[in-house]
Amino acid sequence: MTTDSTLTPEQILSAAEDVLRRFGPAKATVVDIARTLGVSHGSVYRHFPSKAALREAVTQRWLDQAHHRLAAITVERGPAPERLHRWLATLFAAKRRKALDDPEMFATYMTLVNETSSTVEAHIDTLVAQVATILQDGIHQGEFRPTHVGTAARAVFQATAHFHDPAHAAEWSSPRAESDFEGVWALLLSGLRAP
Amino acid sequence: MTTDSTLTPEQILSAAEDVLRRFGPAKATVVDIARTLGVSHGSVYRHFPSKAALREAVTQRWLDQAHHRLAAITVERGPAPERLHRWLATLFAAKRRKALDDPEMFATYMTLVNETSSTVEAHIDTLVAQVATILQDGIHQGEFRPTHVGTAARAVFQATAHFHDPAHAAEWSSPRAESDFEGVWALLLSGLRAP
Repeated sequence: MTTDSTLTPEQILSAAEDVLRRFGPAKATVVDIARTLGVSHGSVYRHFPSKAALREAVTQRWLDQAHHRLAAITVERGPAPERLHRWLATLFAAKRRKALDDPEMFATYMTLVNETSSTVEAHIDTLVAQVATILQDGIHQGEFRPTHVGTAARAVFQATAHFHDPAHAAEWSSPRAESDFEGVWALLLSGLRAP
Repeated sequence: MTTDSTLTPEQILSAAEDVLRRFGPAKATVVDIARTLGVSHGSVYRHFPSKAALREAVTQRWLDQAHHRLAAITVERGPAPERLHRWLATLFAAKRRKALDDPEMFATYMTLVNETSSTVEAHIDTLVAQVATILQDGIHQGEFRPTHVGTAARAVFQATAHFHDPAHAAEWSSPRAESDFEGVWALLLSGLRAP
């Protein structure tokens, strides 16, 4: 039992995930979430003004799960090519784990993601900006050829869609997934490398 | 009215497309197709031994629609970089036209495609082999750096999934689609180019 005065947004988001898991995205309600926490639904609304706001926050939290590690790689000081490779591999591993370890929850989140395209766009913008930072570092280091980093970062992100876009999740259990990833990486690295 | 003796596979496949358009993939039957042609369903089965074989042939025909132009580009003699760009742009344009001009039929074909994964794999193998041929030409011309063409062709195909894989069809009407395509192309070309 949680008391209204100590209720945190994080507790609400965890309860929302439980409820989504049990009832699915079509049936989960704010009342179910409040009941799970032993609080009134008014207490939930004090933190999230609407059901839509709550669903967006839940989606955001799920999308951001690998962000901390990716953000850490972005601000490291080592050689940019190795960091970019590790950044892409970390993103792929995180997405693949979500899709293959818990396919039902993955499907649930896909439903939410399709409802909140602005959340997804912001998520993608954040990721592309991280790639741009690593590319910029690589140009400074003389490892990457000078280029418009915004355009190149978007191209790197789109060219690796196979390995992070949920639309390709069905292909992630393929025995060739790993070598395919390395094949695309080798081509991109060759395109980015300073002559 | 078609007579049984003059019935061609092509007529059956066209009729099958009509029937799919009218009834959808779940309800379309061989009897409907035979009725459209004014023949017995036995006549249809003389050309296609099972409903599954017919659905596969219909899917194959749809997948192959842009093949002739792509195959023609593959065997041209000009500079490989320009041909590869035109090959990818032609593929993108063909897929985009199918998805945006006739979204209902596109969805119908997506259902069929998901049923017949071996047909899709063969289709993809054919396309990747065409890319490999152009890459090989480019290496001979001194335009592309020497590389394992099979691996590089698969990487080019996967890195451009955004612009031909039906999983990305929702993004093809974006005003950025064209510049995104050119951004990925520039990166790939830079990766393929001989130093």
